[in-house]
Amino acid sequence: MGQGQRSAAVTLGLPSWVDGVIGAPGTAFPTVDARMAVVIALARQNVERRSGGPFGAAVFESETGLLVAAGVNRVLQAGASIAHAEVLALTLAQRRVGSFDLSAAGLARHELVTSVEPCAMCLGALVWSGVRRVVTGARDADARDVGFDEGPKPPDWVAALEQRGIDVVRDVRRDDACAVLAAYRASGAPVYNPRRHP
Amino acid sequence: MGQGQRSAAVTLGLPSWVDGVIGAPGTAFPTVDARMAVVIALARQNVERRSGGPFGAAVFESETGLLVAAGVNRVLQAGASIAHAEVLALTLAQRRVGSFDLSAAGLARHELVTSVEPCAMCLGALVWSGVRRVVTGARDADARDVGFDEGPKPPDWVAALEQRGIDVVRDVRRDDACAVLAAYRASGAPVYNPRRHP
Repeated sequence: MGQGQRSAAVTLGLPSWVDGVIGAPGTAFPTVDARMAVVIALARQNVERRSGGPFGAAVFESETGLLVAAGVNRVLQAGASIAHAEVLALTLAQRRVGSFDLSAAGLARHELVTSVEPCAMCLGALVWSGVRRVVTGARDADARDVGFDEGPKPPDWVAALEQRGIDVVRDVRRDDACAVLAAYRASGAPVYNPRRHP
Repeated sequence: MGQGQRSAAVTLGLPSWVDGVIGAPGTAFPTVDARMAVVIALARQNVERRSGGPFGAAVFESETGLLVAAGVNRVLQAGASIAHAEVLALTLAQRRVGSFDLSAAGLARHELVTSVEPCAMCLGALVWSGVRRVVTGARDADARDVGFDEGPKPPDWVAALEQRGIDVVRDVRRDDACAVLAAYRASGAPVYNPRRHP
């Protein structure tokens, strides 16, 4: 192993089929329902194509509905436990706008739309990202029901976000998002979870 | 903007000077104190070279003390709010061992050593990473004292980790880690924080 490998970089990306789901650049998703529909379509395609876990997310401009960046779960495929849909969408959005802070001066207001309520890691990640609103589909309890762990979240995480000026809109197309979780379990794909190694 | 850009990948890496701090591949750090010393050296160099925030981390094999992967804060430089020292160290370590789960069967036990107690995001990230122990230097209150926000962590986060079989060792070289935080503040470098944009 050479010295160079020790400071090697890591690259996280999305499957090429994502472009076909989110449409051409400039496509706007005017309503919360339309934004959640495309995010759930990402999650469903990720299950059907066996390219990751049953989770999709995207960052939108709140006002215009422009989709800035999408994400799907890539933990197993990327060999990286941080590769949650939300982390990919937020990080790709920051690259797109050229700022680590999506609420930097001069930028449009941004929001994260995610097919399942965020785990502990993504809860922190979305606070640091600068999004001003979070829209969620399935509840974290729905994810736990199919065997996923949501991690050490504060019990009052919705209030914690709202105290930080981040609005939370829950249960948008919850049934559709739950159907993707159920399809994943039915597919027999692995419900990865370090908690299984006590 | 072409279609290809919408599913573009993001690459996160470390500055090349990191190799000089962590030593040649195969260097072992037998004690907890030696592990923390090198992690604090990473944080200090990151401040002195103005290559990121005052935070360093590394993943070690618990038994042998081998340094598997290092990380330093790169939020501003990478334009990515996820680029915390812990996230980089954990993700690079997973790439090194070839598994998204550092406690996968057949692997050595791994631990995360970090110069400051983890923020909300990194708390979740370390749970998903498969590390079995966390060793921390400065307290989260020390980070808040210089203006950094630690995010929506559960108040009983140490107990939450221990309930998941992750041991926590705190206050190792805490004064040295605090000195790096103070040096960062004294340098006039930005204390980034989305909370400043309510």
